[in-house]
Amino acid sequence: MKKILLEIAYLGTAYCGYQVQPSKPTVQAALNAATSSLFGFECDIVGCSRTDSGVHANQFFATVTKKGSCTLQTDVPIEKIPAALCFYLPDDISVRSATWVDEGFHPRYDVKSKEYLYRICNAQQRDPFEIGRAWHYPRYIDNAALSQMRLAADNLVGTHDFSAYMSANSSVTDTVRTIYSLNIEREAEDVCISVSGDGFLYNMVRIIVGTLIAVAEGKITPEEVTDITRSGERSRAGVTAPPQGLYLNKVTY
Amino acid sequence: MKKILLEIAYLGTAYCGYQVQPSKPTVQAALNAATSSLFGFECDIVGCSRTDSGVHANQFFATVTKKGSCTLQTDVPIEKIPAALCFYLPDDISVRSATWVDEGFHPRYDVKSKEYLYRICNAQQRDPFEIGRAWHYPRYIDNAALSQMRLAADNLVGTHDFSAYMSANSSVTDTVRTIYSLNIEREAEDVCISVSGDGFLYNMVRIIVGTLIAVAEGKITPEEVTDITRSGERSRAGVTAPPQGLYLNKVTY
Repeated sequence: MKKILLEIAYLGTAYCGYQVQPSKPTVQAALNAATSSLFGFECDIVGCSRTDSGVHANQFFATVTKKGSCTLQTDVPIEKIPAALCFYLPDDISVRSATWVDEGFHPRYDVKSKEYLYRICNAQQRDPFEIGRAWHYPRYIDNAALSQMRLAADNLVGTHDFSAYMSANSSVTDTVRTIYSLNIEREAEDVCISVSGDGFLYNMVRIIVGTLIAVAEGKITPEEVTDITRSGERSRAGVTAPPQGLYLNKVTY
Repeated sequence: MKKILLEIAYLGTAYCGYQVQPSKPTVQAALNAATSSLFGFECDIVGCSRTDSGVHANQFFATVTKKGSCTLQTDVPIEKIPAALCFYLPDDISVRSATWVDEGFHPRYDVKSKEYLYRICNAQQRDPFEIGRAWHYPRYIDNAALSQMRLAADNLVGTHDFSAYMSANSSVTDTVRTIYSLNIEREAEDVCISVSGDGFLYNMVRIIVGTLIAVAEGKITPEEVTDITRSGERSRAGVTAPPQGLYLNKVTY
């Protein structure tokens, strides 16, 4: 007995995040509607992550089962499912692939690593093509600032209690996570921050980005980042960078 | 006595084209509103081109004069004007630079060459990040088809009567134009067509793209393109490719 694993991508601009909320547009609700139209019965959709309002995904996985069941049966050939679901889904959500997986597979618990990308548009004037797709941060981040950011980033890599980088309104109690890599690259007018880890706390990537920007601005030194992590005090870390620059980029099982 | 030349960029999705139309959102109307807010008087805006509904501009020029005058006087320092106008403009229009030019300068008549870019998203499934920004054409354009398109493109370069590539409802009588270059490149899942010339007829770039796609599909041979050009018959050329793939890319004076 099997269930279906979908690989999807979405532009998050029009959605109040991934997870279903009453009478609000969400990616999960769109997937619910499309799968029930295609299969002819209500489905349960379980995603690999709960992205926030306005956050995007270049790669996202979700399983589909018949509502109340751990499996799904259908005559629709698996290779036809991406195009068929794209037909029912809005244009800003796309299904890239569909595969059968064992019913024991869990799209969130079985994740080995996740990579997020955060895009900063570092141009003096805003770029009309980047509205809703990057954080417009006009103050120029020069090479010296990039170097400081990279030193700070190195101090965040590894296994730490990341509670200083978690939104205050989270109820998670196990706040230890491992960051495998945290890279900062300039590509023309973009500054791209990519971070991979075994998992992330609520708003953790956006708070890390806000902290790295505080380092670029000279408000926090790279060494202080280590102290902030040890302190566990959210108030000492940087601001929460806005959602539109954030992309769930890669999910590895 | 001088007038102001603005270099702008815009995402055309939300606009019914560049040119003012009663009670419809247009780029020109947005520029009118922003300049009159900044300068405190009504202005005349003359653009370098009239892009259609849904068409974008990576580079576009427009002059600003006081309404009914050929010049403009202001105490706003010229280097402050881009940021000041961006403040008044919607997010999907940006002013990249502002310079003083002589009152004799004309942003349309003085153009030496224009380059358009047409982006085809040649992925099997649609890309949520390319909606409204490229033509989703799912049938794979292989290297053999690209070669045929390039042969056809070569037959369009030069000085010709391009009336076969002009929308039937245009009233233009001088239909001779010169195409300086017409290049087709694959970049991952994108097929990018860039065309530069001394000027373009109504819908000419989009009809050329539709014709090149007909060549890719084997419906028209590269040699027939020469016949179609000679015939001047719009019905023999390809379809008008949709507007969202088209970008005014570079304007040279």
